Amino acid sequence: MILDRTTLSRALGEFAATALLMIVGCMGVAMTFPEETGFLVGSLQYGLTVGIVVHVFGCVSGAHTNPSVSISCCILGHIAFDMMLVYVACQLAGGLAGYYFLMAMLPKDVIDQSYPAVCLQEPMADLSDIQILAVEFTLTSVLVLGWCAQWDVRNGSCLDSAPIRMGLLVTACGFAGNQLTGASMNPAKTLVPLLFHDHQSTFYPQLGGQTLAAVLVPFIWRYALTSNAKPMKTTSRRPKRTRQY
Amino acid sequence: MILDRTTLSRALGEFAATALLMIVGCMGVAMTFPEETGFLVGSLQYGLTVGIVVHVFGCVSGAHTNPSVSISCCILGHIAFDMMLVYVACQLAGGLAGYYFLMAMLPKDVIDQSYPAVCLQEPMADLSDIQILAVEFTLTSVLVLGWCAQWDVRNGSCLDSAPIRMGLLVTACGFAGNQLTGASMNPAKTLVPLLFHDHQSTFYPQLGGQTLAAVLVPFIWRYALTSNAKPMKTTSRRPKRTRQY
Amino acid sequence: MILDRTTLSRALGEFAATALLMIVGCMGVAMTFPEETGFLVGSLQYGLTVGIVVHVFGCVSGAHTNPSVSISCCILGHIAFDMMLVYVACQLAGGLAGYYFLMAMLPKDVIDQSYPAVCLQEPMADLSDIQILAVEFTLTSVLVLGWCAQWDVRNGSCLDSAPIRMGLLVTACGFAGNQLTGASMNPAKTLVPLLFHDHQSTFYPQLGGQTLAAVLVPFIWRYALTSNAKPMKTTSRRPKRTRQY
Amino acid sequence: MILDRTTLSRALGEFAATALLMIVGCMGVAMTFPEETGFLVGSLQYGLTVGIVVHVFGCVSGAHTNPSVSISCCILGHIAFDMMLVYVACQLAGGLAGYYFLMAMLPKDVIDQSYPAVCLQEPMADLSDIQILAVEFTLTSVLVLGWCAQWDVRNGSCLDSAPIRMGLLVTACGFAGNQLTGASMNPAKTLVPLLFHDHQSTFYPQLGGQTLAAVLVPFIWRYALTSNAKPMKTTSRRPKRTRQY
Repeated sequence: MILDRTTLSRALGEFAATALLMIVGCMGVAMTFPEETGFLVGSLQYGLTVGIVVHVFGCVSGAHTNPSVSISCCILGHIAFDMMLVYVACQLAGGLAGYYFLMAMLPKDVIDQSYPAVCLQEPMADLSDIQILAVEFTLTSVLVLGWCAQWDVRNGSCLDSAPIRMGLLVTACGFAGNQLTGASMNPAKTLVPLLFHDHQSTFYPQLGGQTLAAVLVPFIWRYALTSNAKPMKTTSRRPKRTRQY
Repeated sequence: MILDRTTLSRALGEFAATALLMIVGCMGVAMTFPEETGFLVGSLQYGLTVGIVVHVFGCVSGAHTNPSVSISCCILGHIAFDMMLVYVACQLAGGLAGYYFLMAMLPKDVIDQSYPAVCLQEPMADLSDIQILAVEFTLTSVLVLGWCAQWDVRNGSCLDSAPIRMGLLVTACGFAGNQLTGASMNPAKTLVPLLFHDHQSTFYPQLGGQTLAAVLVPFIWRYALTSNAKPMKTTSRRPKRTRQY
Repeated sequence: MILDRTTLSRALGEFAATALLMIVGCMGVAMTFPEETGFLVGSLQYGLTVGIVVHVFGCVSGAHTNPSVSISCCILGHIAFDMMLVYVACQLAGGLAGYYFLMAMLPKDVIDQSYPAVCLQEPMADLSDIQILAVEFTLTSVLVLGWCAQWDVRNGSCLDSAPIRMGLLVTACGFAGNQLTGASMNPAKTLVPLLFHDHQSTFYPQLGGQTLAAVLVPFIWRYALTSNAKPMKTTSRRPKRTRQY
Repeated sequence: MILDRTTLSRALGEFAATALLMIVGCMGVAMTFPEETGFLVGSLQYGLTVGIVVHVFGCVSGAHTNPSVSISCCILGHIAFDMMLVYVACQLAGGLAGYYFLMAMLPKDVIDQSYPAVCLQEPMADLSDIQILAVEFTLTSVLVLGWCAQWDVRNGSCLDSAPIRMGLLVTACGFAGNQLTGASMNPAKTLVPLLFHDHQSTFYPQLGGQTLAAVLVPFIWRYALTSNAKPMKTTSRRPKRTRQY
């Protein structure tokens, strides 16, 4: 990795993208607390915000905003290993910065009424740990599959509506799993609110499912769903497709 | 049909696509039980999931996930007859696998509160069998027409937003027919939940309407709605347009 | 106009498109009667159905499904005058056929609970006739402007997401005007339900607003919003852009 | 600036675009007053209307409809300074005309029940002025970032679904901030209703946040998020990309 201007702007893009995802996505979730159907609005809001972020930062850094996505991207060889580490670090830092800024902007009443905390959700009580892991693995797999399809050379000309497609994908996964496990599908989004609140939550199954999906899905995509598969190799230099998602 | 790598990845794609459709689509439907307006959210969720599946598996297998669509595709000559049989088998197997996996992930309470079963819906009591057949025929015709337009050479350059268009098509058909007949439009989705539950349901009219639409609509498309119609012939070899929908 | 195969398939396309618009659009509106927020769902359903129809029949006939749109299309010179008459006749016939088929499919209870009739809506009591005309003129103008932009050579390469854009346009106009005047924006949709029901409704202001918009907006588009305007002339032969919207 | 036909049609386009944004956007907001969840429908309606306006007037004037967007566009060098002044004047005039026309069309009851006025919203009482400024700055930054990405040469081929993307962006920002500050993100939309109603509202923080975002974001985009940044210079002649957004 050469610390040139492109690397810097990509790192900054990933930082800003994750910060905006936390600010706008969680602001909408926090404001819908009085509704019983709030989880639907929250899922829609979070999904649309993912769409915004892909629209704005897709051409800058690819708009991963999610360590699981960056890990998969690296396994498929689209970004280098050291770049992946930079991305993950920027995502965590950006998530923290965004969440801190959001807490400063929201009125105290709104923050207090979010249970257990803004953008933090308890898994449904009936679910065993293995079920939580399975749900989070399934939904994160869908998200990673969506990115694999987007990066695939067979969809090389389908960039135009990518932000809308990714946004609606996250919306649908949220509708499905929000009440079960929170449907975070994003280690950064799972961890950041925990660091701000003194809340004992069993977040290991979620993180386990998210990581498992990030590691397994690229192999399934490459070896089962691609007909002319070539061996995956991590590019040691800057990836070929840095700009367009 | 040559059992090469491409055929295998297409069959696997169709299996995985139908499995994900059942898992994510029906998970969302199952979680909205307490709402009176649940059928709206269920239709939206199912439509968005169709969009996800077309986005992810469109470039792998065409993402039919529906025997009616594969039959129409074969009649129009876009896939060969033996390939169509493979597709239908994979769709049924994928639907069963996905539904089984979903049952294992959902808490018992959620499953018990879905009446008559998760992703299974009784037709409205007032409807005669011929009305059920007519409604299901009409809605499946709209779905098959949507695919005919998508496959048509006149829309050859319109692939980018195809997942969103197909997803919204299924959403609108669901809004229209969900309370009447369930608006399944998909023999696999109609049959799979019946195999898991000991429930006497009159599913013949639905299947009849779906099959009728699958057989009739390609002829209407080719001979009434295409100006320079050529005789339909089933390709004996691999279709020309395997990759892009 | 030469009565060749292309003309025939375009006329059939317009007939089928308007029939499907009435069936699927009004089926959804009829099924949402018990909700207070039914007008929102109805507007969304009708808008999404417009999107379906543009997706399916855009490459066949242009998917006008609306006499106002065909009149504007003719004034701008995109279709010939005799073709416009064929289109309008097919739209009215298709609307009648679709509405008749829908009445046969719906249970009697659903039809009885739609007031005053399925897909027929009274204007808000507080509105004067001139206000009804103004609202319907404004909303139909927005619809016709949307088609003018779509037909414009400057948007010649923007066909891919046209069905979604037109669908969301109709949805937004429905949200705005549904409770005021019904937001039909379509003389065919305004007239067809009246022919089936013995209901004295003041539909002249709506029709006046729709016709006014159809006639005025093309001139505004050509002479105020196009910088290198050429004199509008009606093509005496088949239009240049018959296939792509 | 040469007062030629192109300049005139662009100015007229910006006038008509802002007028339609106020009429259709605010008509939908005004009609949803009885709902508790009205702010969600209002945000969706306003966002979809932005999408309509970008679809119709994108090829005419770029469809800014927002002084903040025009200022940013000028700082990035996409339009000249004198053209920017013309745009801002047309936006304010169009907003006034549209709002006046809307007041004439709505029944008195609807106007009276909108509190404090149609399309005018009080910030949440708990918010300090600096919080209002911060929220409005953040949301306007997201909007301006969306336009910066749209104008960027790296997204030069992504015009097709731009109206939908911009519409959903505004929808998501509205979901997030509507209850906090009104989420206007548009000085014209903030000012116009105030001129019609004798209402003492603290609108300075909103305007401050909107202006700050308009000035700061272009510099962030050019110097932090573009890898091969060139010095920004205001074009003294007609911009290169006048037609396509």
